Amino acid sequence: MASRSIRLAVIPGDGIGPEVVAEGLKVLDAVAPSSDLKFERTSYDLGAARWHRTGETLPDSVLAELRDQEVILLGAVGDPSVPSGTLERGLLLRARFELDHYVNLRPVKLFPGVATPLAGATPDDIDMVVVREGTEGPYTGVGGVLRKGTAHEVATQESVNTAHGVERVIRYAFEVAASRPRRKLTLVHKDNVLTFAGDLYQRVLARVAEEYPQVSTDYCHVDAATMFFVSQPARYDVIVTDNLFGDIITDLGAAIAGGIGLAASGNVNPAGTAPSMFEPVHGSAPDIAGQGKADPTATILSVAMLLDHVGAAEAARRVERAVSADLAGRAALGPRSTTEIGDAIAGRVAG
Amino acid sequence: MASRSIRLAVIPGDGIGPEVVAEGLKVLDAVAPSSDLKFERTSYDLGAARWHRTGETLPDSVLAELRDQEVILLGAVGDPSVPSGTLERGLLLRARFELDHYVNLRPVKLFPGVATPLAGATPDDIDMVVVREGTEGPYTGVGGVLRKGTAHEVATQESVNTAHGVERVIRYAFEVAASRPRRKLTLVHKDNVLTFAGDLYQRVLARVAEEYPQVSTDYCHVDAATMFFVSQPARYDVIVTDNLFGDIITDLGAAIAGGIGLAASGNVNPAGTAPSMFEPVHGSAPDIAGQGKADPTATILSVAMLLDHVGAAEAARRVERAVSADLAGRAALGPRSTTEIGDAIAGRVAG
Ligand SMILES: CC(C)[C@H](C(=O)O)[C@@H](O)C(=O)O
Ligand SMILES: CC(C)[C@H](C(=O)O)[C@@H](O)C(=O)O
Repeated sequence: MASRSIRLAVIPGDGIGPEVVAEGLKVLDAVAPSSDLKFERTSYDLGAARWHRTGETLPDSVLAELRDQEVILLGAVGDPSVPSGTLERGLLLRARFELDHYVNLRPVKLFPGVATPLAGATPDDIDMVVVREGTEGPYTGVGGVLRKGTAHEVATQESVNTAHGVERVIRYAFEVAASRPRRKLTLVHKDNVLTFAGDLYQRVLARVAEEYPQVSTDYCHVDAATMFFVSQPARYDVIVTDNLFGDIITDLGAAIAGGIGLAASGNVNPAGTAPSMFEPVHGSAPDIAGQGKADPTATILSVAMLLDHVGAAEAARRVERAVSADLAGRAALGPRSTTEIGDAIAGRVAG
Repeated sequence: MASRSIRLAVIPGDGIGPEVVAEGLKVLDAVAPSSDLKFERTSYDLGAARWHRTGETLPDSVLAELRDQEVILLGAVGDPSVPSGTLERGLLLRARFELDHYVNLRPVKLFPGVATPLAGATPDDIDMVVVREGTEGPYTGVGGVLRKGTAHEVATQESVNTAHGVERVIRYAFEVAASRPRRKLTLVHKDNVLTFAGDLYQRVLARVAEEYPQVSTDYCHVDAATMFFVSQPARYDVIVTDNLFGDIITDLGAAIAGGIGLAASGNVNPAGTAPSMFEPVHGSAPDIAGQGKADPTATILSVAMLLDHVGAAEAARRVERAVSADLAGRAALGPRSTTEIGDAIAGRVAG
């Protein structure tokens, strides 16, 4: 068949980033022949090493090149030698904001055979999708510091929420909920304390809900949600939530679904005005970098999300099935290296 | 012995509030004879019922009376018939802010015999104290809404953090850490995103740490902390954190330590410029109100914290031992009513 060419930007990053990205690309290569896609890759050197060398995090020129790509795969960035916040705000969040990744899509799914820390929980209990807002809320960077270093210092952070931003992420969440068997959407917020922002989310949810009579909706405070994640995770199907609450509950979600080594995510610009970016939820884990110990599964599942995003649903399912089969057999195997896991999954994808 | 008289304000509140408070007071009565304390109680009618009747949440006149008390015991307030935020901001948070409850003290402790949702976790793994800031951060209510109800609406919430507020809660947390065998203090924040506030917490922690060389300190992002709460809770001894992060992780803490029915808390004004307030972490649970189904244990443990606060450490230990013994035997018993549990614990305290 005639193959469609996709411009793929790859940002391996720091620590275990390059190792897990290599396995993600291996799986992408393995699945390509069975789809009509061809990926033209460009690799970008961004992260701690570049910052140390040049002081740059995400230079305008690189950002401009990224805009010209169709989709981005990122490994992980960060290193203890870089002041906290430098790469997060200057690179990761800058990319999410500049490329208008207003949906941060994070499935929380326990695969059969995977151990969960929750006693008695089964794959039926843990199968949700968190739709996290990605471009506003407490992540704007708005705020400042007054009288720094004195006894009278004041430091502020502002959560900025707009009807535009809230409505588009809620609409997306309704679409996700409508496409799933349970058709249930839960708003997670803290509307009894953050009354202005919470009220905006509540009003927009109620208004958009009228267009989706087939989707049932409810509401849960973020504090209670963390409780239910461990005591009754089956409550949740699709969750829509703000940027910070989404950050917190998806790490917890990763933990109950077998650990951060398995958690995939997509920073999605559904409007298509800029490339979306797929990345594992985990960080650069410098303590285990270069030892072949990192689990590439989260990156490989992020590749599946990337395939879905570019319209290759069949290839995406193929990757997911290969991961699922690999996970189901893991308990019986001894520890495997990063490349061994990548090889095994790529083998299943190709085979 | 000569008895010391303590002015105790009681706010039973809504839903299960009055039921659990009755058991808390029963236990207080049972322990009183063995201590030198006498409690002069005044009950305050606050909560949903009063709001429906009068529109008042915490009137100035009642606040003035509360200021004149030495300590406060609160059950729970809230009802679905009251708009979200009304009682939370108007009563609960108003009390915390006006009475300068800058420490929100929340032990997270798994008692022997109590079931935890975490597979394989033991009481040795889950034994920490969260010191949550109580009077600033995202809870200030600062913020607002512009162009409400239009497509151009903007809703903001501001987290306000001061050197004054951060230093006093961090100092308190060091004191708590210094008094415990492990002597470990972890700052939980999100300093890679909320850089202004996070940096203030980090600098103050580093400065105060010099005065406590016997306490080891570390740092954990709030998202990672939720993960470690379920995967490696033994990491934590004492945690100091901001108001919102503390809200979230202590509900999760309650879940891993056997559920919200057991989680006690103190809203403490360590400077003693106003009465401190003790309350279970749970809410008013209107769905089970009036049925004798509520577990009064969290309130009884809050009474133990109250006793500690007024200097009756011996009585506090007595109540804790009685609760611990009751919890150890629960698995062997069938379900008991609110009063049965209260009677059993009061019996152990007196006996
Ligand atoms: C690294 C950090 C900026 C980021 C976030 O807070 O969003 C990370 O925790 C995540 O969840 O992707
Ligand atoms: C009811 C609400 C205002 C309160 C809070 O957010 O602090 C509660 O969740 C708590 O933890 O005591």
